[in-house]
Order: sequence, then structure tokens, then C-alpha cells
Amino acid sequence: MATVLIQREKLQSWVEQVFIHHGFSVENALLSADVLMAADLRGIDSHGVARLSGYLRLIERKRINPEPLMKIVHETPSTATLDADEGIGLVSAPAAMDIAIEKAKNVGSGWVAIQNSNHFGIAAYHAMKALPHDMIGFAVTNASPLVTPVLGAERMLGTNPICIAVPALNEPPFVLDMATSAASNGKLEIAERAGNSIPSGWLTTKDGSDSISPSELRNGGMLLTLGSDMDHGSYKGFGLAAAVDILSGVLSGANYGPWVPPFVSFLDPLDNLPGKGIGHFVGAWRIDGFRPAEEFKKHMDQWIQRFKATKPLQSDNPVQIPGDKERNSQTERVHRGIPLVENVWNDLQNISAQTGIVLAS
Amino acid sequence: MATVLIQREKLQSWVEQVFIHHGFSVENALLSADVLMAADLRGIDSHGVARLSGYLRLIERKRINPEPLMKIVHETPSTATLDADEGIGLVSAPAAMDIAIEKAKNVGSGWVAIQNSNHFGIAAYHAMKALPHDMIGFAVTNASPLVTPVLGAERMLGTNPICIAVPALNEPPFVLDMATSAASNGKLEIAERAGNSIPSGWLTTKDGSDSISPSELRNGGMLLTLGSDMDHGSYKGFGLAAAVDILSGVLSGANYGPWVPPFVSFLDPLDNLPGKGIGHFVGAWRIDGFRPAEEFKKHMDQWIQRFKATKPLQSDNPVQIPGDKERNSQTERVHRGIPLVENVWNDLQNISAQTGIVLAS
Repeated sequence: MATVLIQREKLQSWVEQVFIHHGFSVENALLSADVLMAADLRGIDSHGVARLSGYLRLIERKRINPEPLMKIVHETPSTATLDADEGIGLVSAPAAMDIAIEKAKNVGSGWVAIQNSNHFGIAAYHAMKALPHDMIGFAVTNASPLVTPVLGAERMLGTNPICIAVPALNEPPFVLDMATSAASNGKLEIAERAGNSIPSGWLTTKDGSDSISPSELRNGGMLLTLGSDMDHGSYKGFGLAAAVDILSGVLSGANYGPWVPPFVSFLDPLDNLPGKGIGHFVGAWRIDGFRPAEEFKKHMDQWIQRFKATKPLQSDNPVQIPGDKERNSQTERVHRGIPLVENVWNDLQNISAQTGIVLAS
Repeated sequence: MATVLIQREKLQSWVEQVFIHHGFSVENALLSADVLMAADLRGIDSHGVARLSGYLRLIERKRINPEPLMKIVHETPSTATLDADEGIGLVSAPAAMDIAIEKAKNVGSGWVAIQNSNHFGIAAYHAMKALPHDMIGFAVTNASPLVTPVLGAERMLGTNPICIAVPALNEPPFVLDMATSAASNGKLEIAERAGNSIPSGWLTTKDGSDSISPSELRNGGMLLTLGSDMDHGSYKGFGLAAAVDILSGVLSGANYGPWVPPFVSFLDPLDNLPGKGIGHFVGAWRIDGFRPAEEFKKHMDQWIQRFKATKPLQSDNPVQIPGDKERNSQTERVHRGIPLVENVWNDLQNISAQTGIVLAS
């Protein structure tokens, strides 16, 4: 399969122009492009420019408002709910995180639920905004239903990710960013493109039978929750996905469960929605709300160093800290460029043709 | 295997007297017994009176202080760190939760890290304290190392549970209380007592090979993280366990990772500990910090009802909500009594003989 390698600056600037072309303010276009680029740099290819055409179709269908007027609709000193005015999550989640950080500066922690939003890209971008402030960042979101609860055979939950980002002193930060399903949608896409089967325990057919064919997801199949089966704790993955849905959807006043609007523009939202749009939930704990930040960060260095020094199962394969893999990808891709698979490249060329904004490799 | 059935009131009152006998104040004895009884009622048999003799041995070894003077050592309007003065977690965690609830009343959310503590029983007891206040409760703790990180072959983490408790209106609350390992210690104990093998993916031998023999844990074996293997997301279980360790241990100033003091009294803590005792982390979000509580709780009812109505995989086995199983156990055991397996009953009879406080079945 051919891939095109493209320099980050060139791609990012093109994405900015495309968003501006679709009615975004310069500020929101820059921010949105920055979030997408963070995904591509960190190696989360399913959440970077591969999503761009999907966002644009939602803008065209008027399901994403390119010029949102976000406002805080409920507030206490450490909490708030933000109405994203049908804007893109790439803009509303960073804005919410800024509010959370400000509240944490004032009273030790800050938490913002976001209603009436859309897909927010990678959770890590938002949670990591806390790091330079010596805060621990937290970000979760619900998403279009693809995942069945344990004992069920119906799409009821998104892959509902959880991200927590923790600063260290000399070591790089700890950044956990994980789907609460056994495997993310992106992993199925990669297997399908490569013509590979997938492990048992990721996916079922639409009748709920285990499937090793990634294309079953497009035939109405369902993703399984982390744990994969009852014996291995799939009810825990369900519980985590459910908690994310409750914080993101029920607490914010957004939609939840099977009512979360689909990402794909050719499917309409259900009737009689219980809330507004998609929901997110972000927050920050100020470290020196608990102990001096310098002291904490020294101990985080020790924590990281000790875990890296865990006796390895195989001597040439040491324990990795959450975030290591993505940071290594970023280092490499900043240097060498971002590899885009053929169908993503073609997708971007179509956008280029439609908008007249040229993207050369 | 014989079991003894005992009425809850009788058992609880006996546990209270035993704690008083070992130097607890009446108030702390009542609270500690209440936490243990909650575990036995909810069917978490590994965390109820089965643990009592272990706590008493730690008191005798002066590793649990029966008369702690807890104090807040660091504070902001929405955060605090509590020094538990080497007291039992059964007392320090509820005290911390009271502080968190008070802060949430004042500023919308409250978060308390606890250092210098000991084992805190079931996380659900602490998180559920938020429910009557129309708050969402959160409780995590680190614990003695039994779990290996992904790619490792060394005990570095506890089974580090996560609990989140959410109130509803007419429906019972959502209560997720889960170990971040593939299986809890308690499940291995049950399999071992029954002479059963365990599923592949729960446990390794001390060399890191997969094992289906529950007794390997006592031979230096290691529990695996939720996900069980790389293909099924064991790095996610590792990331969650690690995040719990960081919040509970590093943020509080307690010990973390392999330095968390062992629960069993015959093993001494390591030298050069980086912190004080075991750590916990609890908190509460006030619901009307985000939206009116009544409105939220109506939507939680809808959330619960819709998830219960998920199309089931097998028509006679409907989807369960986190907390349902434990609540059903509680209803049954309040009515019929608490079943104690023979070795736990013998353990309690030994305590009875040593203290002179009689426990009749």
C-alpha cells in the first residue's frame, strides 16, 4: 500500500486554510488544525487528517456550526457547564480546558462538562493542556454508538476514551489516552486496509457472535468493551465506558448512550433526543493543591524511572510508560514527516479539488 | 465446604467490640465495622470480616495505629491532603470523603488525597457517601504490589480499584467498583478454596508464564492487568492501575509502586520508602455544579432504563447496571444473613478465643 510522506508544517497550514474556507474564524481554524496535527504526530492516525472530510461533511449538513458562540450555562467556583453551540469539539474542548485550568488556579481544581458539541479529536490534546501549569489533566468524551454492553447485542456506547496526563520533572509526562473498548475503531481500520483478520474478543457480528473479520463493523457488528469477555472483566470495560458516558452526556446535558449523534453525515441523529449534541468532560487538579509541585514532580521522576526498570519479561523489551509510544512517534514524525495512507491522501486531494486549496506532497 | 450463616447485626456488633478491644475509640470501631459489613453484605467477601485478622495483626505489629490523630496537611478550597497518622483506611477514607463533600458543598467539587494510611476496605463504601448529597462520588486506592506491568515480570502494582458512584431519582444508583487487574485477589481465593483452575490471562508464575493454577500467586506469581494481553489492551489496564497509583501514592505523599507496604504482617515494608504508608484518593462532584440535580437524576433514570432494555444476547439474561449485583446480594444478606466459609469462621473463632468476645453463629 502506497503512503505519502508530508511535512507537518505544510499539512497543518493547509488544514488551517481548509477550515477557514468552511467558515471557521482564523483562531478556531488554527486551533482545530493543531488538534488534528497532534493526532497525526502522535501516531493516532484515525483521529488526525483522516477525519477531516468527515468534519467537513458535517459542516455542510449544518450539523457542525463553523461559527459557534460558546457560553457557560451553569457554574460554581470549581465547576462549569459549557454550551458549545453545535461547534466542533476541536475548539470547545480546549476552551473548556482553559476554563478548568483557570478554576484550578483559583480554587485547586476545575471541572467543565460540555454539551451541544461534536467530535473532539484526541483526548490527550485537551488533558495535556494542564501540564505546563503543573496540573494533572483529565479528558473524556462520549461518541457515536458502536460498542455493546456486556450481555447485550446492541450498539449502545461509543469507544468513550479516558485520558489522564501527569507532569514529571526531568522525565517526560505520563499520558494515558485509551479507548474503553477492547480495541479502538482505528485498529480495525488498519487491519481492514491490510487485509488482516483481528483477534477474537474485539468485535461481534450484528447478531453478537464473535468475529475476526474487521469488515463486520460495517455490517452492523459491535465492538466489545475492554476485557472482551466476562471471564476477563468485560463488565469493567463496560462500567468505564458507562461512567464516561454519564460524565460526558448526562452531567453536561448532552446526548448519551444510543442517542449520541453519529459521526458519519449520512446517518441522521435519532428522534426525541434527550440532550444536545455530543458531550465531553474535562478537568484539572492543581498539584500544589495537594503537595508542593516540585516535590511531586521529583517523585514522578522516581515513579517513572522505577517502572521503566521493572524486571522485563523479555530482556530486550522493557516496560513502557503510558505516553512513551506516542511521544516517540511525534519525535520521528516532526523530523521525517507524516505518512498518509493512500485513501487518506486521496481524501485530502478531493478536498483540495473542491476548495481550490492546493496540497502538494 | 461448610458455611456458617450469621445475622448481620450480631456480626457487626461483635466486630465493633473486637476493634474496641484493640484500642479503637467507639466511634472508629463503629465506623470500621460498618465498612467491613458493607463488603460482606454486598458480596465482596474478600474485603469484609475475612480481612479482620489481618488488620488485627497489623495493629499488634504497630503498623496500624488504633488511635490516630488525623490532620489536614495541605489545602485549597477544593482540595486537601490528609495525614492519616498510620490509622486504618476504614476510618481515614470516610473522614476524607466527609472533607471532600464539604468542599463540594462550598465550591462545587472536593478532592482529598490521603497519605500515611492503611487498607481502606471496599472503595464503594467511600464513594457512595456522596450519593445522599446529590453528588457523584469517586474513590481509588493503591495496595500491596501483586500485579505486573505489561511487558514486565515483577510485582509493581496493587489491584488498585476505581469506584465511581452516581445517584439516580427512582432507579437505584450506578456504582462501578472494579479492580484494575484482570481478576481480583478475591476471585483467586474463591477458585483456590473450591479447587478450581482459573482462566488463562489472570495470573502468571513468578517467571511470567501464564498459569491457570490460583495457588501460583502464593508462589510468587503475578496478577495481570485488565485486558490480560497486549492484543486485548492489557496496556490500558496497566495505565489505569498506574493512574490510581499516582493519584493515591505520588500526589498524597504516600508510598507507590513496589514500595506500598504489604498487607500481610509477616512481610516488612521495604527500606528507604519514598512516602508514608498506603495512599488513597477520594472526591465528589456536586451535581448542581453542572446542572440542576433533579433534572440530572431524571436523565440518570432514563439512562439506566434504556441500558437495562438493551437487546440482550440471550433473552433470559438482561444487561445489568454496575452495582446491581452487589445490591441484590445486600438485599438477600440483610434478610437471610451473611454466609461465612469455614476458614473465615475459624479465623473469627480464633479472634473470639484470644479476646474473650464470644461470637455464636
